[in-house]
Amino acid sequence: MDLLKYREMVENTSFCEPTAGLFKDHIQANLVILPFKYAYDFLLFCQRNPKPCPLLEVLDRGDYKLRALIKDADIRSCLPLYRVYEKGLLKAELKDISNLWQDDFVSFLLGCSFSFEGDFMKHELELRHIEEAHNVPMYISDIDCEEAGIFKGKMVVSMRPILKEKLRLAYELSAKYLFMHGAPIHIGDPDKIGIKDINSPDFGEKSSIKEGEVPVFWACGVTPQYIAQLLKIDMISHAPGYMLISDLKNEDLGILRGEKCFLR
Amino acid sequence: MDLLKYREMVENTSFCEPTAGLFKDHIQANLVILPFKYAYDFLLFCQRNPKPCPLLEVLDRGDYKLRALIKDADIRSCLPLYRVYEKGLLKAELKDISNLWQDDFVSFLLGCSFSFEGDFMKHELELRHIEEAHNVPMYISDIDCEEAGIFKGKMVVSMRPILKEKLRLAYELSAKYLFMHGAPIHIGDPDKIGIKDINSPDFGEKSSIKEGEVPVFWACGVTPQYIAQLLKIDMISHAPGYMLISDLKNEDLGILRGEKCFLR
Repeated sequence: MDLLKYREMVENTSFCEPTAGLFKDHIQANLVILPFKYAYDFLLFCQRNPKPCPLLEVLDRGDYKLRALIKDADIRSCLPLYRVYEKGLLKAELKDISNLWQDDFVSFLLGCSFSFEGDFMKHELELRHIEEAHNVPMYISDIDCEEAGIFKGKMVVSMRPILKEKLRLAYELSAKYLFMHGAPIHIGDPDKIGIKDINSPDFGEKSSIKEGEVPVFWACGVTPQYIAQLLKIDMISHAPGYMLISDLKNEDLGILRGEKCFLR
Repeated sequence: MDLLKYREMVENTSFCEPTAGLFKDHIQANLVILPFKYAYDFLLFCQRNPKPCPLLEVLDRGDYKLRALIKDADIRSCLPLYRVYEKGLLKAELKDISNLWQDDFVSFLLGCSFSFEGDFMKHELELRHIEEAHNVPMYISDIDCEEAGIFKGKMVVSMRPILKEKLRLAYELSAKYLFMHGAPIHIGDPDKIGIKDINSPDFGEKSSIKEGEVPVFWACGVTPQYIAQLLKIDMISHAPGYMLISDLKNEDLGILRGEKCFLR
């Protein structure tokens, strides 16, 4: 499937699967849509918590057209699946949120660890959730985020089992992806970061951990969804694992960082 | 002079010089203080313009105690010299702004290219403004910043003359300092970025350019001051070249980026 075909199928709601493993070199992103009254606190929360919430793009108040990640795409219909939280409760999973749009909505796009999975595959690092064809497992850890205004809570993390002898490779590859959560937040002992049962993820599905493998945890862009539930606020987000796929490739990230100016 | 003595002298206003070349391994930072009504637009401006405005720390509304860059330091008196802009006009240069503090002020600390100068010196790259003992020259370029709310305008850049055979080294060293403006924005021709007279900087003082040297330009954290003048708004900032010197060293930047979590 080519990217244009993919965009068409997402747009007409005929594609609805987790996006891990798709378009391997492309940047993937988490989505958070908030009423403007929460936007300053959330922007500050992202500034203070770059591991779970690395900002890639923020749209103007009320604007639903992306500028950088997918030129002129409509943020209300370019993801395969959305979640709608009302006062912190998950009210619906929808393939299109155009009907719910409000003039004061602000859309935030955050980096996603799926972005470096293509690089993992190139280096023959197995990705269990892709092998087993399920969504990546995500857990609510006991690591405190830095507070910003109303926003506070624990960090959500994603988990990938990695062979002991490949830990260094996994660490070093992901560390390069600073705006896609970067290096792992923890390696080895789920209990050390407050995860009681590795077989019961809070989001996504369980990955089996084979002999010789160690669970490795990365900060996760589902953190804001967990915090919206805690704070009992309204939020629209991507459904965990169903990410925005950018036109930009990882190697284009300099464009988002303003490095294009160097061409001047 | 040790750092404690330096802090004491700055605090009691007996030190007042540009900070280039001081405490070489330490992070230095630009300061922008704005009334809360401009804070959202400015935070978004920084997100969209990470080259001139790489955010290191943002204080809560009304708060004047730093948390990360210098633990518990008072932002109103820990820089050697401040500038006070009223409706865009430079009204005063002060060594202490405690008397001007308002409950709705928000303080933003942005990375500074002085942070990588220590690394330049270690690699025997000459720094003309330090040799000639004057403030680094800064220019208003014709490079447009990305707009955010009321904030828009051209980018201010700093200039260092570099020997032709050392351009690659200067590029590669600075590129590592992603949160201190990173790689140069332009190398070689001032006219290409709208600078008509290299001998008449808009801020700081002229550096002589010797035979075999090329002017190299980096994005500069004085950009917000230039924009405050354009927009005719109130702002308090550092005086160009008189930066905040952090307790943190460049190698500690991971602490600001949340990488400390890895210790968990």
